[in-house]
Amino acid sequence: MSDKAPRGIRLVIALTGRRNAGKSSLINAICGQEVAIVSSHAGTTTDPVGKHYELLPLGPVTFFDTAGLDDQGELGELRVKATHKVLYRADIAVVVVGEDGITKHERSIIARVQELSIPLLVVFNKNDLAAPKDADLAWCAEQGFVPSVVSAETGENIDELKAQLIAAAPQEFKEEPLLLGDLVQPGEVCVCVVPIDLSAPKGRLILPQVQVLRDLLDHDAIGLVSKEHDLPATLGRLAEDPALVVTDSQAVDLVAKNVPERVALTTFSTLFARYKGDLPALVEGAKAMDSLKDGDTILIGEACSHHTLEDDIGRVKIPAWMKKYTGKTLNFEVFSGHDFPEDLERYSLCIHCGSCMLNRREMLRRIRECRRRGVPITNYGVAISKLQGVLERIIAPFGL
Amino acid sequence: MSDKAPRGIRLVIALTGRRNAGKSSLINAICGQEVAIVSSHAGTTTDPVGKHYELLPLGPVTFFDTAGLDDQGELGELRVKATHKVLYRADIAVVVVGEDGITKHERSIIARVQELSIPLLVVFNKNDLAAPKDADLAWCAEQGFVPSVVSAETGENIDELKAQLIAAAPQEFKEEPLLLGDLVQPGEVCVCVVPIDLSAPKGRLILPQVQVLRDLLDHDAIGLVSKEHDLPATLGRLAEDPALVVTDSQAVDLVAKNVPERVALTTFSTLFARYKGDLPALVEGAKAMDSLKDGDTILIGEACSHHTLEDDIGRVKIPAWMKKYTGKTLNFEVFSGHDFPEDLERYSLCIHCGSCMLNRREMLRRIRECRRRGVPITNYGVAISKLQGVLERIIAPFGL
Repeated sequence: MSDKAPRGIRLVIALTGRRNAGKSSLINAICGQEVAIVSSHAGTTTDPVGKHYELLPLGPVTFFDTAGLDDQGELGELRVKATHKVLYRADIAVVVVGEDGITKHERSIIARVQELSIPLLVVFNKNDLAAPKDADLAWCAEQGFVPSVVSAETGENIDELKAQLIAAAPQEFKEEPLLLGDLVQPGEVCVCVVPIDLSAPKGRLILPQVQVLRDLLDHDAIGLVSKEHDLPATLGRLAEDPALVVTDSQAVDLVAKNVPERVALTTFSTLFARYKGDLPALVEGAKAMDSLKDGDTILIGEACSHHTLEDDIGRVKIPAWMKKYTGKTLNFEVFSGHDFPEDLERYSLCIHCGSCMLNRREMLRRIRECRRRGVPITNYGVAISKLQGVLERIIAPFGL
Repeated sequence: MSDKAPRGIRLVIALTGRRNAGKSSLINAICGQEVAIVSSHAGTTTDPVGKHYELLPLGPVTFFDTAGLDDQGELGELRVKATHKVLYRADIAVVVVGEDGITKHERSIIARVQELSIPLLVVFNKNDLAAPKDADLAWCAEQGFVPSVVSAETGENIDELKAQLIAAAPQEFKEEPLLLGDLVQPGEVCVCVVPIDLSAPKGRLILPQVQVLRDLLDHDAIGLVSKEHDLPATLGRLAEDPALVVTDSQAVDLVAKNVPERVALTTFSTLFARYKGDLPALVEGAKAMDSLKDGDTILIGEACSHHTLEDDIGRVKIPAWMKKYTGKTLNFEVFSGHDFPEDLERYSLCIHCGSCMLNRREMLRRIRECRRRGVPITNYGVAISKLQGVLERIIAPFGL
């Protein structure tokens, strides 16, 4: 794809509707024809066309025109597959209703969108030509949603529709995520446990550690840095218990033993699982480890293929720990890159890397796709805590 | 200059001797002809030719062939100037004595080298052809040094000479400098005061802060990070006094008031003045502020011309503070780039930037050149502490 913004940070809008429903003019009316960056590529029935626009104040958006779910024949089946693919990744679904009103076509896609918990907007376009039928409005009310009634041609209600689109965008498109400012109050001490081993880059700290220290300062809190073996002495240097101890996952086992139960404890990975993703979803996913069966296949997901250290964790350490923890014979498969495997549903669990190379929106999208397709998903950090028996403790500070 | 290693980190050896003293074969004998990277450029009488070699284990070295100090006529004067220029920057001076023995030529340059406190090696080459004269050996003994007697041709004593060259190299070419591992003992707490203002880059800490925290961990000490206004509360969170408080220079005034006199206090700038330079020399230079007179000219030295913030400190803040501190009418001139002005001697003081863009060897070379030319030199951080009346306190932890 020729894409100005990285693919992951664009708001993905699945747009569906009959050929004559006025989808293109609706997009132009919403985004402003003059600023629209229309980069249309040759799409296939299985790889739908994305059209890129600017939707201020949200920024870049991609509209995918989907075929719907009631197509017949072999080609129709491919189109249905393509529609599913778009819906798995969609942030918002917009169903554009034209002069034919709501038919079986619209109903089936609305049902699927609701099943996948995708924010839905139903738009009656062409109000300048014909008002929506009373029966259709009644059906919408029955279904529990209020459709928009607009005219791309005259601009009627377009501003309202734009505001609804922005309101429907996932929260992560609208606000800064929390790192740990809510866990440590102004003036409180947070102890950061930083092991210095051979993999630590010489003369500096790694970025997540620096980000945590900076976030503490930004919240008027006090950050304290200690090696794992010095932790008992470090705690002794404080007049009272710290508000929180954050440790590298590598040392969580040792640190958990040395931090009194009354002191809140978590890991850098867990902070970033929340900052970069959906912590409750990843914790929920980790619980799937307890119900794995012999022969189950686990998907190890990597955001990039460049780091041998993470390879080691995903390809060697986690499989070994899981074998020990579950006592089952499990298969592990690794994927890296952008799209999940087509047959994602055959995996019993997806364990994703810490996604240091992904932004929050992209990671949330991956989590969401797994959940929409019924596959539990967790990440390396949360998985390791689960396997080491400290998960409950390290998620307690988040009220989970 | 076409240079493989950055110019600043090469060991600079000023080589002098008659045309027939065998200098080139001596260099080849020392460095190993087969590995010698000889990049000889067209030099002029005022810009001497540097020849680059590898001298293991020290790494890259540059030999400058200097003309000596007793040249006659106009061209001779330029040659003498060129020799001075090389000597100001030389790490080591090697005087190669050939078959003519020690003459007025060798004596004048030896005297100048000693005057500038440059480590000196006197080498009698061509021992295979003729042994040094007794009178010359006696003169050397009188002067208090032991010459090397070698033969580049036969290799006699060349290994010994190489060992002497390595021994004569400044300490900074042979060892890692200290950041603060000697100021904080294992298990002790160091409080780092990090103001978060508009100039602080979002979401991270600046490199010197990260380096200090990492150095503490490397020495099994405990780093604590606090904003300047939270410092009293932070100190209250500790069971006992910290071993050291390190603050950003910007906040040193406020921090000095809030840190009890019994607690050691310094600044990041002071730590890096030592790490990247010669702290006693810079402190000595700062004292020159007390004897400035009306009409004196101050040189503001910048390692690079890219940062507007440092411009602000060097071009606006420091001149304003100095005017207030000294009560004198002073002139300020700014230079950036590699070489000091030819007429360095006319400045009453050089105030150099923190040299974040220079390595330690280059900064030491600049300090040394100023001292050799009789110009006091200090840096921004040390100067600011002096001007704010806290210099004595912030250098106390270093035993100064």
